[in-house]
Amino acid sequence: MCELLGMSANVPTDICFSFAGLLERGGRTGPHKDGWGIAFYEGKGARSFKDVLPSCESEVAQLVRSYPIKSTSVISHIRQANRGGIKLENTHPFERPLWGRNWTYAHNGQLTGYKKALSVKTQLPVGSTDSELAFCWLLEKLTERFPTRPKNMATAFRFIASQANTLRQLGVFNMLLSDGVYVLAFCSNNLTWITRRAPFGKATLIDSDWIIDFQKETTPNDIVTVIATRPLTKDETWNVMQSGEYVLFKQGELISQKHFP
Amino acid sequence: MCELLGMSANVPTDICFSFAGLLERGGRTGPHKDGWGIAFYEGKGARSFKDVLPSCESEVAQLVRSYPIKSTSVISHIRQANRGGIKLENTHPFERPLWGRNWTYAHNGQLTGYKKALSVKTQLPVGSTDSELAFCWLLEKLTERFPTRPKNMATAFRFIASQANTLRQLGVFNMLLSDGVYVLAFCSNNLTWITRRAPFGKATLIDSDWIIDFQKETTPNDIVTVIATRPLTKDETWNVMQSGEYVLFKQGELISQKHFP
Repeated sequence: MCELLGMSANVPTDICFSFAGLLERGGRTGPHKDGWGIAFYEGKGARSFKDVLPSCESEVAQLVRSYPIKSTSVISHIRQANRGGIKLENTHPFERPLWGRNWTYAHNGQLTGYKKALSVKTQLPVGSTDSELAFCWLLEKLTERFPTRPKNMATAFRFIASQANTLRQLGVFNMLLSDGVYVLAFCSNNLTWITRRAPFGKATLIDSDWIIDFQKETTPNDIVTVIATRPLTKDETWNVMQSGEYVLFKQGELISQKHFP
Repeated sequence: MCELLGMSANVPTDICFSFAGLLERGGRTGPHKDGWGIAFYEGKGARSFKDVLPSCESEVAQLVRSYPIKSTSVISHIRQANRGGIKLENTHPFERPLWGRNWTYAHNGQLTGYKKALSVKTQLPVGSTDSELAFCWLLEKLTERFPTRPKNMATAFRFIASQANTLRQLGVFNMLLSDGVYVLAFCSNNLTWITRRAPFGKATLIDSDWIIDFQKETTPNDIVTVIATRPLTKDETWNVMQSGEYVLFKQGELISQKHFP
């Protein structure tokens, strides 16, 4: 099992608090020692930091931890390898350009029979994971359905969610996917989310003793949604997603939600 | 004018010495203050660090400078913006996946009439530079000529070089491009290269007082080629490329070279 972390916000927001909690699970409070990665947007540009070392030992992770990353869309992942060796090309998040945007994606779970079921022609994977192949397959399905970028991008994300539900038939498929504007979360078995807005309170990380007072870090208009495999704080109420459910966020707000039976 | 730096080597090699020289030009000894970036390969995986801050002030650049990057293929760039704002999405190197490989690319120069001349359908640029559009156009031309990956990849790179020569007709087009195995350099007006092999000697950076004794850093079998806009060291002989010339390297060795009239 890997762990996912995503964020969608209406103003560039510091992810350090949540990311610090996630990194603790990378080899210290959790077994996810086979690499980690984070991708975040600055405008249309996406930046990513990755490492094959456990996040609790990684020098790059230390930089990210102290670096004041402010972004409106973030996708992050710590890995416990099951398919594909411990190599940089197998480390999430994966990034691919489409329709003039950088798309970032991370997967938690494991698929079976995927090599036969998921054939791709143009979006060929670089690494050897089921996860990256599923990403390539999703983007190919998307461009088959929409040869050019649809005006209403939410439609595209709803279509991706329906295809993610097909992937769920091959095993466990929890997924985060973003084009920098929208953040989509699809749940196969483990995914939770929380939207923070005024009045902001305090929260304590489950995986360390770090307490944050969000009121000091935000303005009254901020809307910040965090998505994670398991709740990251112990004194807030997280929404636990159901198997086959997706949620789609834009600027921190939930704009679409559906439960595939 | 921006500055380019590339490397091709037969063993994972430390780029820090050359990169330190390049970074000095980013706002200190040179005028290239509008961002910088470096992409390097670890196996099939590519890693990149970028920033819109001048390299001599950038926190990320400090990390890269002290980080022991060892790679066989590197593409790097410091930017003085002419086309496209100072934004992350306009910062080189650009990366795109093709044929199961990560392709990285950086351009130095300026094109005119490029929006009309370079039409693309599938490889749509994310940012607004002439450079990224030229990269997208090159990859589209490549997949038009080779719908699937050719067995002999050197053929693909020679084709790209011929297309780069077409781009030279639109202005100044100095380019570095790699798929992680091959490193291609195309010269429009400013590009030099040097291949270091046994017996290794000492060299002094032009842009700082750093002296390196390559003999202490290498084994007798190492072959390391460095490509740069201007020579980086003052006590070695660099090959100055001609306008319309390309050189193609694999594992540090020059494997193809041609001068388009």
